[in-house]
Amino acid sequence: MAEYNFEYFTVRFPIDHQYVAHVEINRPDRLNAFVEAMWLNLAQIFNKLSSDPSVRSIVLSGAGEKAFTAGLDVKAASEGMLSSETKNDPARKAALLRRHISEFQDCITAVERCEKPVVVALHGFSLGLAIDLATATDVRVCAKDTRFAVKEVDIGLAADIGTLSRLPKVVGNYGWVKEVALTAREFGAEEALRVGFVNAVYDNRQATIAAAFKMASLIAKKSPVAVQGTKEILNYSRDHSVQDGLRYTSVWNSAALQTQDVSAALLSGLKKRTPTFEKL
Amino acid sequence: MAEYNFEYFTVRFPIDHQYVAHVEINRPDRLNAFVEAMWLNLAQIFNKLSSDPSVRSIVLSGAGEKAFTAGLDVKAASEGMLSSETKNDPARKAALLRRHISEFQDCITAVERCEKPVVVALHGFSLGLAIDLATATDVRVCAKDTRFAVKEVDIGLAADIGTLSRLPKVVGNYGWVKEVALTAREFGAEEALRVGFVNAVYDNRQATIAAAFKMASLIAKKSPVAVQGTKEILNYSRDHSVQDGLRYTSVWNSAALQTQDVSAALLSGLKKRTPTFEKL
Amino acid sequence: MAEYNFEYFTVRFPIDHQYVAHVEINRPDRLNAFVEAMWLNLAQIFNKLSSDPSVRSIVLSGAGEKAFTAGLDVKAASEGMLSSETKNDPARKAALLRRHISEFQDCITAVERCEKPVVVALHGFSLGLAIDLATATDVRVCAKDTRFAVKEVDIGLAADIGTLSRLPKVVGNYGWVKEVALTAREFGAEEALRVGFVNAVYDNRQATIAAAFKMASLIAKKSPVAVQGTKEILNYSRDHSVQDGLRYTSVWNSAALQTQDVSAALLSGLKKRTPTFEKL
Amino acid sequence: MAEYNFEYFTVRFPIDHQYVAHVEINRPDRLNAFVEAMWLNLAQIFNKLSSDPSVRSIVLSGAGEKAFTAGLDVKAASEGMLSSETKNDPARKAALLRRHISEFQDCITAVERCEKPVVVALHGFSLGLAIDLATATDVRVCAKDTRFAVKEVDIGLAADIGTLSRLPKVVGNYGWVKEVALTAREFGAEEALRVGFVNAVYDNRQATIAAAFKMASLIAKKSPVAVQGTKEILNYSRDHSVQDGLRYTSVWNSAALQTQDVSAALLSGLKKRTPTFEKL
Amino acid sequence: MAEYNFEYFTVRFPIDHQYVAHVEINRPDRLNAFVEAMWLNLAQIFNKLSSDPSVRSIVLSGAGEKAFTAGLDVKAASEGMLSSETKNDPARKAALLRRHISEFQDCITAVERCEKPVVVALHGFSLGLAIDLATATDVRVCAKDTRFAVKEVDIGLAADIGTLSRLPKVVGNYGWVKEVALTAREFGAEEALRVGFVNAVYDNRQATIAAAFKMASLIAKKSPVAVQGTKEILNYSRDHSVQDGLRYTSVWNSAALQTQDVSAALLSGLKKRTPTFEKL
Amino acid sequence: MAEYNFEYFTVRFPIDHQYVAHVEINRPDRLNAFVEAMWLNLAQIFNKLSSDPSVRSIVLSGAGEKAFTAGLDVKAASEGMLSSETKNDPARKAALLRRHISEFQDCITAVERCEKPVVVALHGFSLGLAIDLATATDVRVCAKDTRFAVKEVDIGLAADIGTLSRLPKVVGNYGWVKEVALTAREFGAEEALRVGFVNAVYDNRQATIAAAFKMASLIAKKSPVAVQGTKEILNYSRDHSVQDGLRYTSVWNSAALQTQDVSAALLSGLKKRTPTFEKL
Repeated sequence: MAEYNFEYFTVRFPIDHQYVAHVEINRPDRLNAFVEAMWLNLAQIFNKLSSDPSVRSIVLSGAGEKAFTAGLDVKAASEGMLSSETKNDPARKAALLRRHISEFQDCITAVERCEKPVVVALHGFSLGLAIDLATATDVRVCAKDTRFAVKEVDIGLAADIGTLSRLPKVVGNYGWVKEVALTAREFGAEEALRVGFVNAVYDNRQATIAAAFKMASLIAKKSPVAVQGTKEILNYSRDHSVQDGLRYTSVWNSAALQTQDVSAALLSGLKKRTPTFEKL
Repeated sequence: MAEYNFEYFTVRFPIDHQYVAHVEINRPDRLNAFVEAMWLNLAQIFNKLSSDPSVRSIVLSGAGEKAFTAGLDVKAASEGMLSSETKNDPARKAALLRRHISEFQDCITAVERCEKPVVVALHGFSLGLAIDLATATDVRVCAKDTRFAVKEVDIGLAADIGTLSRLPKVVGNYGWVKEVALTAREFGAEEALRVGFVNAVYDNRQATIAAAFKMASLIAKKSPVAVQGTKEILNYSRDHSVQDGLRYTSVWNSAALQTQDVSAALLSGLKKRTPTFEKL
Repeated sequence: MAEYNFEYFTVRFPIDHQYVAHVEINRPDRLNAFVEAMWLNLAQIFNKLSSDPSVRSIVLSGAGEKAFTAGLDVKAASEGMLSSETKNDPARKAALLRRHISEFQDCITAVERCEKPVVVALHGFSLGLAIDLATATDVRVCAKDTRFAVKEVDIGLAADIGTLSRLPKVVGNYGWVKEVALTAREFGAEEALRVGFVNAVYDNRQATIAAAFKMASLIAKKSPVAVQGTKEILNYSRDHSVQDGLRYTSVWNSAALQTQDVSAALLSGLKKRTPTFEKL
Repeated sequence: MAEYNFEYFTVRFPIDHQYVAHVEINRPDRLNAFVEAMWLNLAQIFNKLSSDPSVRSIVLSGAGEKAFTAGLDVKAASEGMLSSETKNDPARKAALLRRHISEFQDCITAVERCEKPVVVALHGFSLGLAIDLATATDVRVCAKDTRFAVKEVDIGLAADIGTLSRLPKVVGNYGWVKEVALTAREFGAEEALRVGFVNAVYDNRQATIAAAFKMASLIAKKSPVAVQGTKEILNYSRDHSVQDGLRYTSVWNSAALQTQDVSAALLSGLKKRTPTFEKL
Repeated sequence: MAEYNFEYFTVRFPIDHQYVAHVEINRPDRLNAFVEAMWLNLAQIFNKLSSDPSVRSIVLSGAGEKAFTAGLDVKAASEGMLSSETKNDPARKAALLRRHISEFQDCITAVERCEKPVVVALHGFSLGLAIDLATATDVRVCAKDTRFAVKEVDIGLAADIGTLSRLPKVVGNYGWVKEVALTAREFGAEEALRVGFVNAVYDNRQATIAAAFKMASLIAKKSPVAVQGTKEILNYSRDHSVQDGLRYTSVWNSAALQTQDVSAALLSGLKKRTPTFEKL
Repeated sequence: MAEYNFEYFTVRFPIDHQYVAHVEINRPDRLNAFVEAMWLNLAQIFNKLSSDPSVRSIVLSGAGEKAFTAGLDVKAASEGMLSSETKNDPARKAALLRRHISEFQDCITAVERCEKPVVVALHGFSLGLAIDLATATDVRVCAKDTRFAVKEVDIGLAADIGTLSRLPKVVGNYGWVKEVALTAREFGAEEALRVGFVNAVYDNRQATIAAAFKMASLIAKKSPVAVQGTKEILNYSRDHSVQDGLRYTSVWNSAALQTQDVSAALLSGLKKRTPTFEKL
């Protein structure tokens, strides 16, 4: 199994899951809490995988039994913030903060922009940033023991790295989102399943990751032209009218339908064989 | 019972369901699979019903016990595609494909644009195009035996006739939609009910169609001014901000509230009678 | 407990729920049905609370055991409408109706625009306008006995004060919304919970109001900077793309993150104390 | 000539210009500079005229030879701002500022929302707020001596009452707008005419106001149903796609075309008479 | 020269202007005023030309010396309207009007949707509908004697077939549009040129048509892949943000850049020859 | 004068123009034609200047007397394209092209996103990419000898790096844009001035650059809080409705108005001194 490391991340290419990459958050002694280097690395990893032709789907998970991630490393963040407090002018401080937030947002958005579908396997503490990150992936599954919370109001701020923009569109219901975002209360796997935040719940971390791999493998066996088009068009549709979505789809497919994958898939269907598709 | 036929479609006006039209896909020997003539006819039928004053709601269903529709008639489609492959220039081929997809999309959109509410009764195989079609109707009910799938990635393409634009807005949840669209896995009636893709599940095809008629009849008894305004404003709101939706509503109702149906309805309410409304 | 009255409304500031205001619709002998003075008062109340620094969250409920509100006082409304019928020109009548609807919509929108989160406790008859009003609040809870209906088509009109624009975005599912809006059929607490229209169901009116207060109190204990930012950003995100939502968030937080509440919250977290926050 | 006064404003109804109202900014000793009471009054005046059936178009001008308005009364504003500086928390200060700006914006927007077309006659100093105000009207004419400037960057702020949102859409050219907004340089009547900020230039204040009255009178002679629909649809179109604009227009006109004004206008056309139209 | 006729239209394919079609409005005895059959025919013609591979650009002009078109044939229209007045209910009448306006709008929109660029040559009376039609084309040129007016308010209605949605985006300036739309005053060729409504003015009808042909021929000599992509992307950009426009462009060109026209054009450039391009 | 070099670019900080950076395209022997390394460097330069506190405005110009830039280095580009042609599947080729175009677009967008205003001085050949680049700056000035063309259709493609999305919004007029984009015809300085593509024309390259510096210096003397806010809000407004623009402005200014620059500017105004502003 090939593998490479970024600081606090391990990226693996398991032999028994062809075309699937595994990204693991790897700072288990600190509950996988994020420091700035980590979100910069996260973006780099997903940008790289996005154009890697040997990758067709991705599993994202957290190392250690205790947490997917407990969120932002608040201690590190508050030290960082202190240093930026050297500016006295609130407008100038605002400019620095704006840039800082935008850069952080862009790192999370790299997961959404990644051309390959991402299945996230959540477990244990999955707080704050865990939600921001999970809503930028395509499919969420979790272990029974997962403890979720949109934790930000508890540290005096409105979540600003993506949760408030993406979570309502992931679950599709504003009433529940407002409750958990305004109260910061914890919710568990079962509730997450009921409201549609996760697609399935498994017994423990291991079973969850296994299930994520199973789904990622299934996706990796399909035509990458079809799969990547489907991800892109669904993301586009979220933010546009149906009429705009249809137009975008017809333009997208005017190139995509010229692929040899269609005839490969049709032929395999007739011959009851598994089709193989060229890299993309 | 009046009735007329389009190729592969039967349109009926059952005497015991006043103001309700019944559109039946009628190619049961091929699992109601769609060839090009069918989507052109579908559009014509719904355009006609849209302005027919003796129709106030519509039931859409499929003939035969096996399928609502098994989707696109892939064999016919791939033959059609071969003939268009005579062009060698990918840009010119793209232009033809774009036109073709747009025309097909417009046919499905005719169901959404139809001014009268459409209740679809699904059963058996309801694959690919069945989902595109169902998401363009207003309310979905299905039989226990229904086998749904967003099948397109399995034939090497991203669904392009409406599913990827409309399905997430119908069910309101992106996690589940991404899973079924990226894996093409089948799902059944119960799952469809749980995620809100269908409003109710019935024992079999017959019971499902009966239930669809019951709902359509209930709608047909209301003021057509009120009903058609409600459909239009809900469709508008799906693609616009709340503020835009409110403005559109106030302009729409500035004419609609001048109807005599309001006083007719109020008076009937006081007198505990069933109101009757002029045709629209 | 401080308290003041607007016609048909009581506004209380219960001592045991610091920073929580209680707005009660108070016309129980007429099932809390709304006459024009009431929606004008409603707007005034919520505008006032919006900028009142001693209020951090709001509970909205209805007086009397029978109804949250049975909706518009149709008798009063139809009398009002008759008087406006003195204009003979349909275009001129339309202008008056448009203004009238817009003003009414703006009053309901005042609840949504109120900077403080609003938890609504529903019970008994909650028809028509009750839904318009409830969808403009942030979180909905209800009693077991609640009888909901989007009643408007039964009186010959498309709901025009907010339900058709907001309800689909609250529950996130168009299939169910179309059914209840086109048929005007009643639905109960359990169904409301299942589709996500309400967040929780309680045994009776009293328990529901108690639960609403509990949630409102929990919210009122958080940093008001964080809470009000969260409400605003979530409302903004509903009507904008994710990319626009992220940008708005970063600009908003560029000022909000300069609050002392962040360090107050962090410090209290470390010391396991309850933080206190300055008024806003 | 009927007339009433608001503080710093005179509203006249000149007998020789039927259906035309004249709003005059009346604080000539201070170059018509705006204090807070003035923008609140401005909103009240335009809201009132908006629904006054005896008004069909409006002329807006400034009293005194020296200025339409020299802009915000900076001295008064900075005193007001000082008092709001009592809050120490930048986030809390931001909340107050946000409310304050929004209220001010809403007052200017009242001119745009006024259902009757507004022709503004500019002369002399027309700085800062003068541009915000002028861009919220429908047609701008000016005297030769007018001295325009988007002055705000010179006092350390980005214009926030409307200029940056409306000016580019009024003139339709971003290059010129960016230059004048980023440099705060003055420009004269001729340049304003060349870039399309004003529709015409006249010799002096008196001739400008006379020309504004002539245009307003011409508009006031047309069908008010047609005129008010035209203003509304043009404002709507500015902020929406062509497809959305067309849909809104068809809904709007479905009521408006039922007016008797159409046949009155057609008949008068045939008989070469001036039509008269019922109040609106 | 090939040629075919639709009622009131002549469509020619002049031999000396390869790939250019000429559409002539041909009802000169009635100043080319439009009756319903005409706009239906207009749509049919432009839909046909849109997919005709032997057409690469289109000239639109009016027969007879007096008028491009004097607009809607008001006499015919008012008779049609009378017949629709048989409905007494204003809401039902509104439904009919809405459908009627939408159909009419769609016919004009067919010109905009036509995949080939349209150059319109205007002369003489060019009133009302002439403006609606001209704004749906790509480039406008006119004769010195042209008499333009947005005439609709003079017959008691707000222009509803496209002018109010498209004219401001064509000229890019709201001040001038509001003046001519609210006053219905006539404007001439010179003013049309100054505000950018037309691109050039010529001595008379003949010279104008000749100039239109020259421009259309120039366009027809370019790669049709490049030309049709340019028209489509420019129309898309009008109604979308820059960011959306860029994304749409990249998807569009991902197919279009695969054309052999690029190398054909580059090669011809090097060899100083005129390139020839395959039909599209 | 400080200075540093990127390949094909020189970045200078002229002592006599405090806070102004000068970016020069520096490949004069090839008419400043762009190869891939250049747009990547361009993005890096503008990203760097965007957050450099010692820079408040930027002048962009081209080295050599002959050209600002003659556009894309077609020879280099077509070689690059050839190598990408190794893929046979049109859908896979499309994916590569899409990524390539997006990356190129992002580099040009870096100029627009740069927080500091950019004044571009154009001269000589300013073809194709020159227009893409110029429309991403804030203000355009040019020399008399400038030869502009939207050249792309002449090499068989629709312009895809920004011109078709930005040019119509820069000049605000679609008729002229369509003509020059569909015909690829050259236009000169005078025409560019008339349609508002450039703000001013100067005698030669040197005078143009001098004028650009004068304007940039003027801007650099203003409060950077005010200037950068003005640029950002104007860019935002281009792509949003007026109502959205106003809201964004109020949130932006809620932080920006807390700057000390306002009182510094006001005080200097009273004392007739030039204010100095802290770095940003």
